[in-house]
Amino acid sequence: MRTAREIAEFVGGTLRGDHSVEIHEIGSLDSAGQGALAYAEGRYVANIAASNASCVLVPPGDYPSRTVIVVDAPRVAFARVAQWLYPLVHPFRGVHDTAIVSSQVTLGSDVALGAWTFVDDGARIGARTTIFPGCFVGHDCEIGEDCVVYPRVVLYPEVRLGDRVILHAGTVLGADGFGFVFDGTRHLKVPQVGRLTIGDDVEVGANACVDRGALDETVIKSGVKIDNLCQIGHNVQVGSHVVISSQTGIAGSSRVGDHAVIGGQVGIADYCRIDERATVGAQCGVPSRKRVPAGEVYWGTPARPLKNIKRQQAHLARLPRMAEELKELQREVLELKKTLADRVP
Amino acid sequence: MRTAREIAEFVGGTLRGDHSVEIHEIGSLDSAGQGALAYAEGRYVANIAASNASCVLVPPGDYPSRTVIVVDAPRVAFARVAQWLYPLVHPFRGVHDTAIVSSQVTLGSDVALGAWTFVDDGARIGARTTIFPGCFVGHDCEIGEDCVVYPRVVLYPEVRLGDRVILHAGTVLGADGFGFVFDGTRHLKVPQVGRLTIGDDVEVGANACVDRGALDETVIKSGVKIDNLCQIGHNVQVGSHVVISSQTGIAGSSRVGDHAVIGGQVGIADYCRIDERATVGAQCGVPSRKRVPAGEVYWGTPARPLKNIKRQQAHLARLPRMAEELKELQREVLELKKTLADRVP
Amino acid sequence: MRTAREIAEFVGGTLRGDHSVEIHEIGSLDSAGQGALAYAEGRYVANIAASNASCVLVPPGDYPSRTVIVVDAPRVAFARVAQWLYPLVHPFRGVHDTAIVSSQVTLGSDVALGAWTFVDDGARIGARTTIFPGCFVGHDCEIGEDCVVYPRVVLYPEVRLGDRVILHAGTVLGADGFGFVFDGTRHLKVPQVGRLTIGDDVEVGANACVDRGALDETVIKSGVKIDNLCQIGHNVQVGSHVVISSQTGIAGSSRVGDHAVIGGQVGIADYCRIDERATVGAQCGVPSRKRVPAGEVYWGTPARPLKNIKRQQAHLARLPRMAEELKELQREVLELKKTLADRVP
Repeated sequence: MRTAREIAEFVGGTLRGDHSVEIHEIGSLDSAGQGALAYAEGRYVANIAASNASCVLVPPGDYPSRTVIVVDAPRVAFARVAQWLYPLVHPFRGVHDTAIVSSQVTLGSDVALGAWTFVDDGARIGARTTIFPGCFVGHDCEIGEDCVVYPRVVLYPEVRLGDRVILHAGTVLGADGFGFVFDGTRHLKVPQVGRLTIGDDVEVGANACVDRGALDETVIKSGVKIDNLCQIGHNVQVGSHVVISSQTGIAGSSRVGDHAVIGGQVGIADYCRIDERATVGAQCGVPSRKRVPAGEVYWGTPARPLKNIKRQQAHLARLPRMAEELKELQREVLELKKTLADRVP
Repeated sequence: MRTAREIAEFVGGTLRGDHSVEIHEIGSLDSAGQGALAYAEGRYVANIAASNASCVLVPPGDYPSRTVIVVDAPRVAFARVAQWLYPLVHPFRGVHDTAIVSSQVTLGSDVALGAWTFVDDGARIGARTTIFPGCFVGHDCEIGEDCVVYPRVVLYPEVRLGDRVILHAGTVLGADGFGFVFDGTRHLKVPQVGRLTIGDDVEVGANACVDRGALDETVIKSGVKIDNLCQIGHNVQVGSHVVISSQTGIAGSSRVGDHAVIGGQVGIADYCRIDERATVGAQCGVPSRKRVPAGEVYWGTPARPLKNIKRQQAHLARLPRMAEELKELQREVLELKKTLADRVP
Repeated sequence: MRTAREIAEFVGGTLRGDHSVEIHEIGSLDSAGQGALAYAEGRYVANIAASNASCVLVPPGDYPSRTVIVVDAPRVAFARVAQWLYPLVHPFRGVHDTAIVSSQVTLGSDVALGAWTFVDDGARIGARTTIFPGCFVGHDCEIGEDCVVYPRVVLYPEVRLGDRVILHAGTVLGADGFGFVFDGTRHLKVPQVGRLTIGDDVEVGANACVDRGALDETVIKSGVKIDNLCQIGHNVQVGSHVVISSQTGIAGSSRVGDHAVIGGQVGIADYCRIDERATVGAQCGVPSRKRVPAGEVYWGTPARPLKNIKRQQAHLARLPRMAEELKELQREVLELKKTLADRVP
């Protein structure tokens, strides 16, 4: 429990109303009740009056007879408070009796290993990292400090994770990339001997896959957020603070620049370059070796600048009318020719 | 084993031919042999004569010298018989020695927990539910009666399942939704503290993901069928008896009405509304905040009524001819202008 | 370690330069250093001079002052050498104490079963096959010789695998297909009683799903390579040496001919036929019952021959100009009519 005053101090906001209001949980503006903190910004500010939240994080403005905390960016402040009120729960401590940990493993202080977790030779796990039941950590993996690895995650050998990484259940890191060469009869496997390196503060969703490098390295830089069921191929390089929404696939050797935003179900073929701060819209298909310039917004398949796509869609919508106009013109020209033939000798 | 007569009674159909035929298994019309029951409807009725099935569920009609059971809806009757002949197999009983079940767990009668299953504090599991080896059930989960949870399923804390729910292997329920806010430098995680509630008779395919709510609740109503590798985001509400085919993704806060049918690889962006009994065709892309009206069929990216899409595709197909006609018209107009200039002073 | 001479002999190539160079690892042309073998073909041959690799597999040509092995197909030769230098690692031997193996299971010689692996009644596992920790093998499964099954793979009952099959972590084989029939009120499950049979030398990526047959059989023939997160529906038949890239879905009863190549995120609806050696491009959508002829390249949604799609895209790109030309023509015709009306009585 925190008072509104404590929360205002924590986020550096200006408290108006009842300073002693007690906050026990967070909620959405619509559903929050007594004891809950909510936030509002943009058009949702209009809904504050009807909310039952005990306290609301708000942008500058007038909020008569409400307890509010005025901040510049309510959603950002809300995230900070929420992280403070709901620290990552570590539901167990120590190494479970059933965990199998090779004698050649290095464990930091306060590492928690759940039941039926397997940690192979040469692995290193940093302080305060929690690994839930049923995970597999291959030989020579390195996991940083304060990481949370949810149940049934598989790390193939030699995967490296930075600090504060969160891996959701069922995710597979460092599996072989899809590397084959056709010898005229069959597809020969090209051994995938590269590594996978993931930076700090990365979060990977459930049942996602990030492959190890073929010969070189697959790299996910710090601050990257990858949603459920995404697929990142071998040798891909994803820059810092990139966001990749659900079910997106990035094929081998493509590079994504810092702060790029990739929508859901996007397909990025091999050897593409998505430059810094570019946005690739949902379901977009980026063809092999294509480059999306820095800061641009691309959409469609094949991917093009959003404004081109929109223009093309407008033309497409007008197509039926164009067809009619063309027909009408054909009739008029025919008539003109007749008139001319009839009247002009 | 059942006789044709018993099966006819069970489905309330009219048996013609040999009443004592013994049925040991079900099969397709093409491959079923001696002792097998098949079904036929629509154009496949023509294939009955060539089938080796011992008995066939058929619509009203003439089937000389065959043992058939005449019913109104052969495929529905077939499904009923099949469920009767092949009850869900529970290959083990009781709680396996290696399962770890918190002392604060409530188990109904005849619950079966497989090897290496972890059930955390406060969970409740209803009577006759079977959980296969290697599942993880987080704290305060509620699982109804007669459920079947296949191997390696992960339920995050506080997930609630109704009765007769089937979860296929590798599925992850209740993981954090993709909730981040950019603070100008990096993406802050917004703690995902909502729940996930799933109704009765829901089936979820293998390696699928349904996220918990961010602040409110993700809700999957009764009778919903979700195929393999689907992704359902936080706060999504899926109405009763909705069917969602493989690899489809539904982004945060979207709502799907009762009895809607969603094809495979569909992408539904956030805050969409798919109304009751609407159909969204395979690979369709529904843009953010879009509404698909009740009973309509939508297709394409961006999603539009199927008939509009078809008309547009017809126009597209005619585009090359339009281009030629335009060129021809330009020639004719040029000639007309010449003629006019030459002959009319 | 091998010498350049040994490697040249192994691949049947012609060694030029220092025969005694020692090779410890493989690498890419760009990153390989002292002791590494690389390869080059096509435009990358130009990069050989700048490479630090100790030895390079090359096509016929001039490579002054380099140690090279001349072969016809460098990438194929590289794959062969790589397999030879990096044999599949079997990090453990024997049946782990914690594995649960039914007494009615048949194990070949030198089978390795990892910790917490469950093998149910009637399963048969061939010689030298390795199953990593946490896998589930259902009753009556058959697994061939020299297979590698990575952690957390689930085989439902009666799945059959040939020899030298590789299954990556989290993959689910033989789950129920998506078979329901609507009885007017709700969707009835049609029991999925068919099998899944997979040939020799198949590799399936991480977190992929291949469903069992509904009534008949799902069949993956020998030499097929399936990437991560793919979905193969019930009754699908995939011919020999087919390649299926990541996140592709193939719906029920479709058939893919030998040596076809399917790109990433492709959706193939039900009852399609993709004939031998056809190519289906990335994100392509093949509608229900469509046939892609042998050897053809299809792309787009709905899928059409690549050349048609390209022509249509060219027309689309010209659409804005067409619209302008049409307008101009309308103006000219109007003027002609005026002129005619003014001057020709």
